[in-house]
Amino acid sequence: MQEKLEELKKRLAEISDLNNATAVLGWDQQTYMPSGGVAARAQQLATLSHIAHEKFTDNAIGHLLEDLHEYAGGLPYDSDDASLIRVTKREYDKAHRVPPALVSEIALASARAFDAWRKAKDASKFSDFAPFLQRNLDLKRRYAECLGYTERIYDPLLDDYEPGMKTAQVEAIFEEVRKEIVPLVYAISSKLNMVDNSFLCQVFDEQKQWDIGVEAARLIGYKFERGRLDRSPHPFTTSFSVDDVRITTRFMQNYFPAAFFATIHEAGHALYNQAIRHELERTPLGDGASLGVHESQSRMWENLVGRSRPFWKFFMPRLQAVFPKQFGHLSPEHVYRAVNRVQPSLIRVEADEITYNLHIILRFELENALLEGRIVVNDLPEAWNAKMQEYLGITPPNDAEGLLQDVHWAHGSFGYFPTYSLGNFFAAQLFVQIGKEIPGIDKYFEEGEYHILRDWLSARLHTHGRKFTMDELAYKITGEPLQIRPFIAYLKNKYGEIYNL
Amino acid sequence: MQEKLEELKKRLAEISDLNNATAVLGWDQQTYMPSGGVAARAQQLATLSHIAHEKFTDNAIGHLLEDLHEYAGGLPYDSDDASLIRVTKREYDKAHRVPPALVSEIALASARAFDAWRKAKDASKFSDFAPFLQRNLDLKRRYAECLGYTERIYDPLLDDYEPGMKTAQVEAIFEEVRKEIVPLVYAISSKLNMVDNSFLCQVFDEQKQWDIGVEAARLIGYKFERGRLDRSPHPFTTSFSVDDVRITTRFMQNYFPAAFFATIHEAGHALYNQAIRHELERTPLGDGASLGVHESQSRMWENLVGRSRPFWKFFMPRLQAVFPKQFGHLSPEHVYRAVNRVQPSLIRVEADEITYNLHIILRFELENALLEGRIVVNDLPEAWNAKMQEYLGITPPNDAEGLLQDVHWAHGSFGYFPTYSLGNFFAAQLFVQIGKEIPGIDKYFEEGEYHILRDWLSARLHTHGRKFTMDELAYKITGEPLQIRPFIAYLKNKYGEIYNL
Repeated sequence: MQEKLEELKKRLAEISDLNNATAVLGWDQQTYMPSGGVAARAQQLATLSHIAHEKFTDNAIGHLLEDLHEYAGGLPYDSDDASLIRVTKREYDKAHRVPPALVSEIALASARAFDAWRKAKDASKFSDFAPFLQRNLDLKRRYAECLGYTERIYDPLLDDYEPGMKTAQVEAIFEEVRKEIVPLVYAISSKLNMVDNSFLCQVFDEQKQWDIGVEAARLIGYKFERGRLDRSPHPFTTSFSVDDVRITTRFMQNYFPAAFFATIHEAGHALYNQAIRHELERTPLGDGASLGVHESQSRMWENLVGRSRPFWKFFMPRLQAVFPKQFGHLSPEHVYRAVNRVQPSLIRVEADEITYNLHIILRFELENALLEGRIVVNDLPEAWNAKMQEYLGITPPNDAEGLLQDVHWAHGSFGYFPTYSLGNFFAAQLFVQIGKEIPGIDKYFEEGEYHILRDWLSARLHTHGRKFTMDELAYKITGEPLQIRPFIAYLKNKYGEIYNL
Repeated sequence: MQEKLEELKKRLAEISDLNNATAVLGWDQQTYMPSGGVAARAQQLATLSHIAHEKFTDNAIGHLLEDLHEYAGGLPYDSDDASLIRVTKREYDKAHRVPPALVSEIALASARAFDAWRKAKDASKFSDFAPFLQRNLDLKRRYAECLGYTERIYDPLLDDYEPGMKTAQVEAIFEEVRKEIVPLVYAISSKLNMVDNSFLCQVFDEQKQWDIGVEAARLIGYKFERGRLDRSPHPFTTSFSVDDVRITTRFMQNYFPAAFFATIHEAGHALYNQAIRHELERTPLGDGASLGVHESQSRMWENLVGRSRPFWKFFMPRLQAVFPKQFGHLSPEHVYRAVNRVQPSLIRVEADEITYNLHIILRFELENALLEGRIVVNDLPEAWNAKMQEYLGITPPNDAEGLLQDVHWAHGSFGYFPTYSLGNFFAAQLFVQIGKEIPGIDKYFEEGEYHILRDWLSARLHTHGRKFTMDELAYKITGEPLQIRPFIAYLKNKYGEIYNL
């Protein structure tokens, strides 16, 4: 049996190397690649993905997993070997059920849809994109049918990003969140001017923005000798091994929070990958548990830490040293309030902590309705705008700032959006737990001792890599599955105070 | 037959994508990779190479080549299809003859030897490296036996870098060159002080060095939108497609020529790859003909152009604009003479145009003697130093500046060195030819019209990619095989004038 396990690991290591090579090519594409490189890079990426997919769906892997099934059953659920066999089987079964021809069709359609989306967005004309969206939907329906489901067609799609999570569970959670948040947004909407953030909109030298971002990333524990920071139009984190986890950020000359919080956000993702146990490398376990769990880490560092009062008590002198003219005359409290200003707005990625989740809920509801045929593509603009009005009290003036703003549907990534909010909820739940286990954590934050939180997260969560699902991790760490109470309480407490509700 | 050809091309395209992906990983390793990334990157590179090798040596490719043999015979020798089949068969036959186990053994041994070499070089102690060199030699002898040869064991090794070239041919050429150059070196050695280059050894701001290097690269026609310049410890050129050809350089704060000529040298390599016909991409023809032919291009732009009088007549005002303090008071003639100063010295990569070839001849003679058992590894230091004294009139004071200076033998790359000099000779031969075809080429150079040379090279040489060998190209372009007369005449003419011989 050990031989079979070794054979499985050998095959998975090769596939993992291919996936990591693909990630290097992707990183290069988004950071340094000259414009001339586009066409060849697309071919190189397609070839690597194709080979990795072919090797992963090889029947030999299926046979090895079958042969190892009983062996895994005799091991503790959370052992490395049992987890490897379990998680690999979960991913193999999914990959194996989808015919390669459909995989290629989806890749081709989404490449075309991406192109159409970019143009439609530039022209702010949804109707130009609609046929491509329709095609993506049709293909993803076929994809979901291949994977199979018992309750909802959205289930197998969601499962690609958030393994084990069910549509019904998300629906119930979102329903509750929406009921709590919409009134909060309406209450704050009448008091928007209570918070002044105009001083965040001055000219900030780019090199200095870079430096203060690096300082913050280092502070929370990002290891530059095992990673690096670069510029890219859309910030992202990518990992080629536990010891090479890279982040990117982007700069806005006239708005300080853009680069600063993007850097902390990505560093939060990177802390996760940098702390996965080396033993899990070159296996399917050598990655984050899911998109939602990953997002819980980036959001925790960005929002629960980076937008907290204790953080700014510590960090303010550092900020003032770099930008004396812009911040010298202000108190930590000024910055704390300014970076937490609530403002119902059109664009998801610019949204504050409260309204952000309404953007997500809207997308989740609409993509479900589309997939289940409760609305058709042509009705989407109207449905989008109606929900924007209902949840946020605003209506997009055009398609570019409305339903064309995000790339996800052009990529065919239906089921991706909810993971952002699930990450927010899980982050708050974990934060309550650490508060119980380490009394006075805020005091550590005020003193710049962020390793307390980082080490706790690493030992409880990061180290496990992809062994467990989000609910399993929630149980393991907090004794409960995913909860939203902590997140709602956090919002009400924090914003109730800021806006005197 | 067309179907078989398409099948062959499809397979070769996939392998080409893998090789280009490997090149991206290599570029990243030498430019931006954090130190933590080393171990995982070695695995990723090994996996990609292994898969590419496995796919290339697949019997199916052998069968396709056999089936296509007759078809190719009916086509013109220089047609794309005949060339593709011929060159692929040449490389397939070699790759197929070497057992995969030996390939792995060589990779492992050279990785270990590289490590040992680095340490031995730091300690300047050849005896620490000797057993690893012995191991590399033994393995490369076995490798050469697998490939087979009729005359010299060095033949199949040389052929890896310079297809079609024979040891006896190089030996004859080098013998003649040595006889001409050694007296020249001795003659100049008594007049070293005739040329002052002290003004090249001032402080030069790195950003300004960068800018002037970019200006020179652009001037000779390097396209930045289809490439980019980065820093790396050892300058190199790498290509991921015809439209993504990247170069690197390195900076010495106190010596202007280091970065400047490294940038022109690498841009010269890059011009070659940027001008290969798109139709040859994703096939074994989509690369340079050989290391020697590649080097002919880099050396031509670096030395025959960049170290020429007409170049400095044109470029001097540009240099003075960037470095007024350092060069404002000097004439083009000052710089022309200074960048052509001859100085017999210990280190190959710092050598001038004349002595450089003696460094190469020495290495070629010694690696041949080692492989043929005419000397043993333990005798190498003595043999090295004796030849240095004979050819250059100097004796290395230690191993680090003697036989440990180059990485090639640690990599097991026996047969690589001569290509540097072959490139020098071929460059001079091509230069004579363009002089015949385009009268007054110097005038164009004085006016900054470098596209005349570049377009000529692209049309005559670059466009063909890897279709022809060096000798074939020499015949095709100049009507003769590789010649050394033009190179010797060039040296005697240029340095005879500078040193008043």
